[in-house]
Amino acid sequence: MAKTLLPSASLRGDDHPHEECALFGVFGHAKAAETTFYGLYALQHRGQESSGIAVGDGKELRCHRGMGLVAEVFDRDVLAQLPGQVAVGHNRYSTYGSVGVANAQPLIVNCREGTIAVAHNGNLVNAGELRHRMESEGSIFQSNSDTEVVLHLAARSRRSGIVEMLADALSQIRGAASLLFATADRLIAYRDPHGFRPLALGRVGGATLVASETCAFDLLDATFVRDIRPGELLVVGPEGEKSVQLANEPRVHQCIFEHIYFARPDSKVFGENVDRARRRCGKQLAREHPVVADIVISVPDSSNTAAMGYARVSGVRYEIGLIRNHYIGRTFIDPEPGMRSFGVRVKFNPVVGVLRARRVVVVDDSIVRGTTMRKLVRLIRSAGASEVHLRIASPPVAWPCFYGIDTPAREELLAARMPVAAMRESLGVDSLGYLSLDGLRACVEDPQNYCTSCFDGDYPVDPFGEHEQEARRRAAFAPAPETA
Amino acid sequence: MAKTLLPSASLRGDDHPHEECALFGVFGHAKAAETTFYGLYALQHRGQESSGIAVGDGKELRCHRGMGLVAEVFDRDVLAQLPGQVAVGHNRYSTYGSVGVANAQPLIVNCREGTIAVAHNGNLVNAGELRHRMESEGSIFQSNSDTEVVLHLAARSRRSGIVEMLADALSQIRGAASLLFATADRLIAYRDPHGFRPLALGRVGGATLVASETCAFDLLDATFVRDIRPGELLVVGPEGEKSVQLANEPRVHQCIFEHIYFARPDSKVFGENVDRARRRCGKQLAREHPVVADIVISVPDSSNTAAMGYARVSGVRYEIGLIRNHYIGRTFIDPEPGMRSFGVRVKFNPVVGVLRARRVVVVDDSIVRGTTMRKLVRLIRSAGASEVHLRIASPPVAWPCFYGIDTPAREELLAARMPVAAMRESLGVDSLGYLSLDGLRACVEDPQNYCTSCFDGDYPVDPFGEHEQEARRRAAFAPAPETA
Amino acid sequence: MAKTLLPSASLRGDDHPHEECALFGVFGHAKAAETTFYGLYALQHRGQESSGIAVGDGKELRCHRGMGLVAEVFDRDVLAQLPGQVAVGHNRYSTYGSVGVANAQPLIVNCREGTIAVAHNGNLVNAGELRHRMESEGSIFQSNSDTEVVLHLAARSRRSGIVEMLADALSQIRGAASLLFATADRLIAYRDPHGFRPLALGRVGGATLVASETCAFDLLDATFVRDIRPGELLVVGPEGEKSVQLANEPRVHQCIFEHIYFARPDSKVFGENVDRARRRCGKQLAREHPVVADIVISVPDSSNTAAMGYARVSGVRYEIGLIRNHYIGRTFIDPEPGMRSFGVRVKFNPVVGVLRARRVVVVDDSIVRGTTMRKLVRLIRSAGASEVHLRIASPPVAWPCFYGIDTPAREELLAARMPVAAMRESLGVDSLGYLSLDGLRACVEDPQNYCTSCFDGDYPVDPFGEHEQEARRRAAFAPAPETA
Amino acid sequence: MAKTLLPSASLRGDDHPHEECALFGVFGHAKAAETTFYGLYALQHRGQESSGIAVGDGKELRCHRGMGLVAEVFDRDVLAQLPGQVAVGHNRYSTYGSVGVANAQPLIVNCREGTIAVAHNGNLVNAGELRHRMESEGSIFQSNSDTEVVLHLAARSRRSGIVEMLADALSQIRGAASLLFATADRLIAYRDPHGFRPLALGRVGGATLVASETCAFDLLDATFVRDIRPGELLVVGPEGEKSVQLANEPRVHQCIFEHIYFARPDSKVFGENVDRARRRCGKQLAREHPVVADIVISVPDSSNTAAMGYARVSGVRYEIGLIRNHYIGRTFIDPEPGMRSFGVRVKFNPVVGVLRARRVVVVDDSIVRGTTMRKLVRLIRSAGASEVHLRIASPPVAWPCFYGIDTPAREELLAARMPVAAMRESLGVDSLGYLSLDGLRACVEDPQNYCTSCFDGDYPVDPFGEHEQEARRRAAFAPAPETA
Repeated sequence: MAKTLLPSASLRGDDHPHEECALFGVFGHAKAAETTFYGLYALQHRGQESSGIAVGDGKELRCHRGMGLVAEVFDRDVLAQLPGQVAVGHNRYSTYGSVGVANAQPLIVNCREGTIAVAHNGNLVNAGELRHRMESEGSIFQSNSDTEVVLHLAARSRRSGIVEMLADALSQIRGAASLLFATADRLIAYRDPHGFRPLALGRVGGATLVASETCAFDLLDATFVRDIRPGELLVVGPEGEKSVQLANEPRVHQCIFEHIYFARPDSKVFGENVDRARRRCGKQLAREHPVVADIVISVPDSSNTAAMGYARVSGVRYEIGLIRNHYIGRTFIDPEPGMRSFGVRVKFNPVVGVLRARRVVVVDDSIVRGTTMRKLVRLIRSAGASEVHLRIASPPVAWPCFYGIDTPAREELLAARMPVAAMRESLGVDSLGYLSLDGLRACVEDPQNYCTSCFDGDYPVDPFGEHEQEARRRAAFAPAPETA
Repeated sequence: MAKTLLPSASLRGDDHPHEECALFGVFGHAKAAETTFYGLYALQHRGQESSGIAVGDGKELRCHRGMGLVAEVFDRDVLAQLPGQVAVGHNRYSTYGSVGVANAQPLIVNCREGTIAVAHNGNLVNAGELRHRMESEGSIFQSNSDTEVVLHLAARSRRSGIVEMLADALSQIRGAASLLFATADRLIAYRDPHGFRPLALGRVGGATLVASETCAFDLLDATFVRDIRPGELLVVGPEGEKSVQLANEPRVHQCIFEHIYFARPDSKVFGENVDRARRRCGKQLAREHPVVADIVISVPDSSNTAAMGYARVSGVRYEIGLIRNHYIGRTFIDPEPGMRSFGVRVKFNPVVGVLRARRVVVVDDSIVRGTTMRKLVRLIRSAGASEVHLRIASPPVAWPCFYGIDTPAREELLAARMPVAAMRESLGVDSLGYLSLDGLRACVEDPQNYCTSCFDGDYPVDPFGEHEQEARRRAAFAPAPETA
Repeated sequence: MAKTLLPSASLRGDDHPHEECALFGVFGHAKAAETTFYGLYALQHRGQESSGIAVGDGKELRCHRGMGLVAEVFDRDVLAQLPGQVAVGHNRYSTYGSVGVANAQPLIVNCREGTIAVAHNGNLVNAGELRHRMESEGSIFQSNSDTEVVLHLAARSRRSGIVEMLADALSQIRGAASLLFATADRLIAYRDPHGFRPLALGRVGGATLVASETCAFDLLDATFVRDIRPGELLVVGPEGEKSVQLANEPRVHQCIFEHIYFARPDSKVFGENVDRARRRCGKQLAREHPVVADIVISVPDSSNTAAMGYARVSGVRYEIGLIRNHYIGRTFIDPEPGMRSFGVRVKFNPVVGVLRARRVVVVDDSIVRGTTMRKLVRLIRSAGASEVHLRIASPPVAWPCFYGIDTPAREELLAARMPVAAMRESLGVDSLGYLSLDGLRACVEDPQNYCTSCFDGDYPVDPFGEHEQEARRRAAFAPAPETA
Repeated sequence: MAKTLLPSASLRGDDHPHEECALFGVFGHAKAAETTFYGLYALQHRGQESSGIAVGDGKELRCHRGMGLVAEVFDRDVLAQLPGQVAVGHNRYSTYGSVGVANAQPLIVNCREGTIAVAHNGNLVNAGELRHRMESEGSIFQSNSDTEVVLHLAARSRRSGIVEMLADALSQIRGAASLLFATADRLIAYRDPHGFRPLALGRVGGATLVASETCAFDLLDATFVRDIRPGELLVVGPEGEKSVQLANEPRVHQCIFEHIYFARPDSKVFGENVDRARRRCGKQLAREHPVVADIVISVPDSSNTAAMGYARVSGVRYEIGLIRNHYIGRTFIDPEPGMRSFGVRVKFNPVVGVLRARRVVVVDDSIVRGTTMRKLVRLIRSAGASEVHLRIASPPVAWPCFYGIDTPAREELLAARMPVAAMRESLGVDSLGYLSLDGLRACVEDPQNYCTSCFDGDYPVDPFGEHEQEARRRAAFAPAPETA
């Protein structure tokens, strides 16, 4: 029996919001499974809990999924059992530590049009409502995922042909959805009309690729063509490639957190180099919140780029003050109670020679609950830092995300519970500065195309279905008890 | 990644028909998962490819399934994660060697009445038809199993309440179905009105048990109460126990092969001791096909009892002429080509001291394709037997089973391809005698209550749905090319 | 990490003495590793806890060992990494439930003559003494096994050449030792001058085989040539085959328990068919201890043959009264406390239809502690047997074995603790009869060539080294407290 | 069976020399095994192929070892089976991809003084000679490791008492050896008189700790006390702590590569902050090899600190131009042939936005063969860099190491094959500058205390034993064919 022990929350919980997954698809490649393996491998940072690939050989669609990293789930033997020219793959960050692989994707089902596999990045706000309606009409669900809802909608469509059925289904969902479908001989990609989650189109040789981020194309020596457009349904099959604009929104709402934290800096998302946007955030942060200090350090690796931007504009020297342990394993043993800073030390160790007697600016990309940051500050002080000035390269996260990011309830968000002055005290820093929302907007090229709801609570799609109980709304937005 | 390599057909293929599974359920036991573990353990002979248990704790239903023996799939850690008072479990003999556990049972799904788990022993003859209809109306299927069809029918029922919905569903299916359902707080057992597959009711302490065979009760020191009746739906829940007779057939058609081969001799099935019926078959066989010989041997272990019956009536001495290797592993390496009798030798070794220069009566319970028997006869001769007289303790298997037993197509059945005289020659034996159908009937208590379609082609339920293609019917009953 | 959980003693402890291992070797076969795999597979009954194969390709000697059955430890990939023409393999029954594989064999070491692998069946009575002497002279030991002692003796020999060194070493050891050695290009077999443990020579094609039992040759379609003679050292290498008689004893002392219990009935050991000797024991037992009864049953599978012998002479009908579960797994969960007969029920289930209201003769091959038998008798009675007459097809085991069999200390042996009348009462049977020692001797061909020390305490080799502490002697032979 | 597939050389082979292992020991801690687990965890960067812990509880010494990361080899269940107050642990970087764990450490053996475990970091230059002598005198070896030689020497010592025996043994070895020994109740640490490899002493609560680097102490909230002195034997046992100076060398020869590459920057080794020495190297490199450029980038993560030092002195801006994938798995699938830069891309992806049209200074810590660097340069150019100036923060590695570092033969070392000008061309860079040896010496505090033989061929201990064949010497120093 294969047991999968998930890392305890305190160890993986580096107090960032979490992306729910990575998508990769390919059509027209003799080694579709291997290609997808490498694509998922390059996108491993978007999800580490489970991985899966479904491959079509023109007649059949086969799927393998498992718990763990893509390189743990797949080996030569498994890939050899997945022949075919079309594939979709998925890495999942799971919030549920469960026995078994029931929630791993791609999902694969049979309906009257044959077998279909689907991989999803995002979150549907009306999934509960749709599900409730379909259950009352006799549908049965094998998972709790939004993704299964899409398949049920398609299966129940009165239109004929798999593409038409999917189009019908996609017209009914609301929320965030970058989706990849595979049949035995077709690859179908869709991005919701708000464009919440990224999805990029690439080519290598005669093959078509689709991926959450362009760094997957780089590994494969493939060329980035363009983003899948918000509202676009792209069908690639034996008959060629066909793009349909299913819907349009007056404005698109791309997730600005991709630039702040999720995407790899070597990727291009939403048409923009992540590295460049992220550095601009650091620079703007330095303009908004300068401080007299000796060194600037980052919380590696996600805030390295922003920290260097801050250092450059502020003129304060960039140093490596924290060493990150990259060997954090899957099964882990709880430490002795009483080792105070253990949880954070397992991940980061301060460089005493860099920090001692220095006035330190610590740049991080975001704060969610603040618990890890509090320990980290204590760790930096224990290494001898004379002052700790915390600078966050994004505005305060004060509202939960409903579009595919795993955030805690509002009452657990540090910034929803107290004003900045109280946060400063709570975190134990000498000063605290957040990038302003206007400042952030100035760092990306088309600021009007971004969703910033986690900062301003301005939700572009009503996060609650019409029949949603008021109770749920209240729970999500419970008045944070300690708010000043 | 856990890879599961199924044994190659030639090794597990001991040329018997194969039972598709074992069922075990419990209600009202503080350790429902452990109890089910032991129940499945005692029923391991009915299926070795996968095992699963779903457990309800009054609020939630949790499930764990995996490839392999029950003692491989479950350990203390896994059982500890399955608390609850109600459980259903399943051992599967799978005909499909596939990567992953998608076909393992119990199936667990969500519908408007909540979460429900199901385990199935049998085969529905109208599953394809029902499935086709429901797919055309928008249902999606995650497996190829008949079992999922039952759940869809229930989910689509217009009745309310889980029991009513199931009753509605069960009224639509045709064929062989012993079924166990669990919700978070209920155990539901059903046996089709023909009663094809066994299902027994037991008690231990205050708990209710249901099992495919009574040997599962023995291991748990539980008491056998009675069989679930053909057509009976038994619901055990917080409100107590309730039995509903959903349907009645003028005659029941219990699978006579349970007595011939499937069930353990220490079990009681269909109200009769298996051991007793099986010994009677051997005795009757001796009366019908006596022979002058020195010893009677069995093909261990399934024909031991019949062979002893034969020995007793014939007066020929019973001996152990074949030693069976019980350590046949899951992953196995193909032998050198050229070791002629290897496939059968891995499983059986002849005892030369017993066989040499002896006239040997070999008693086996049945012959399907005849390939293994041919090798076994050669092996017995190579050990020095001067004559080999084969006696089969059941009639010739000349028709495929459509009620839950895995048999090959008609054209592969030895008895469908040639008359007994030709079989004798083909198998290389000095004489061959099959128990007559009338003789077999005389060995069980209520012969009118048994299905004997694999012997006489007299199918109590039309094995093909009304909309079934004629092609399929023709394929199943293809004129055997070599039939005399 | 691969954890190996050994079955709890109560489950594997079927109250038999335990053989410590199986040996298999081959020289001159293009697929030496595969051949050894199959040889070990046929000898799996002699040891199930670990398995290993060392293979030489003329230049190098490679080894793979692991916990579990041979089919679990080896697969195609592993065998493919073990090319070569010479191999030795070993199955171990381990009395030590330890983490890791340190005690698995073959041992493989480097000395001045190169790399050498060794597999051992037996027990040296002067191992402690030799070890103590060599440790005091600076040798280091990596295991607690006797086997390592042999290698140290060889390495310290002043003679030159691997064969001469081994001969020197073997002249110093006392006790039971069937040994197989492999170098990169040689197979060497040795059997101690008393011939305690079996070792047989075979051939297939141009290859030489050596195995603990001839059933391994049968599986490989190989021919049994003769036994390795007591005191013989057989060397097979590029220069051909050479046999040296290293030592002679006036009498040989082959382990009579091989015929009683250990060997497979289809094997030939010590030049005699096991099946035949075992049946004779049953017949003689019937002559010595007749009883008026309805049926004779065996404790399957080890006493089947003896039980049939008993039935034949006594005229009482042989029946199958106990069904054995062959699916006992490696990891097992403890039952509910309070299930009285659970431990034995997991392994055996009584056939009620056979036993009820019958006077039953139960034939078993031996009793060690008696704990399992006590439960089994209770189980048979609970199935309705009106009388239970226990017949043991060997004399009372009253003395521990020092020649390679795992027996408990004298004070735990039932027959050392009480006379037969008290045993009868303790076991709860209506009558109890053991085969007499003279009776047993009459069942084998050359009775003077057998060791019977476990029955009569007449140890052919002093089990304690000269410097052995008196304390140890006293402990082994502690006066059994309850002896009448 | 647990198979361990090692990563292919091309993937782990990042063209650095490789440290052979990490040591950690503890005495007087109630949870010695857990403490050692965490110590090894913090030292994972020094060896990832196997891990092991031996623990003494005052009476017995138990050991568990396995292939993989420490968090893969150990879990709660395994640690629970290792009770005790004293422990030694080891992480190994193995150069041998072998089936099984025979080479994993700690080694554990029995000798006349009882059971002893040993873990070793280093390489003995006279191991072959000592081994040859002891084999000729009758010792047997179970591994090819130098470490076993130490144990044999101790076992053969005529002195009495474990400490005396070890001291005797240690006086005979020559070369690099930081060693940790454990008995059931003692921890013994030793560092060779040249002090080649690091070994630090720490304390937490009442417990004594010993570790390869101080970062292990940090994770455990322990205090660094001092380094184990070259030639010191430290014994910690129930009788207290005792330090003996076994030998003295006129000069110590600590491995300067610990500062250049091996040690974590947050560690203190040889009494000096690694981070500080490493930054100085970068600064000095900038002074010696300035260049007009737009940005400085590092090859992450090992050269980050040096690159920042270079940036600071040169005034050229530090940027992150390469993103490292930290999810490289253990089992990996070879890519399509034809993906040119694949091998290096799997590990690094260039940030196009940073590199395009820029004159780039690439700082790396060292070059061994040059193969990876050549691909990396090509990758950086393909991302649009207009110029690539390579700066190496250490002198050319032109001689193999014989003191515990895994380097290729001299003829494979890029710097032994050609002068700098030719290297520049071979690597395809616009300019190439190495730190001078004098410059490097100026970066550490006591330059006279360091071994620099890999740069200057000045070996402080003759790397070949007196009886060593001349052939081996010639092979090691084969005239590099392409040397100008």
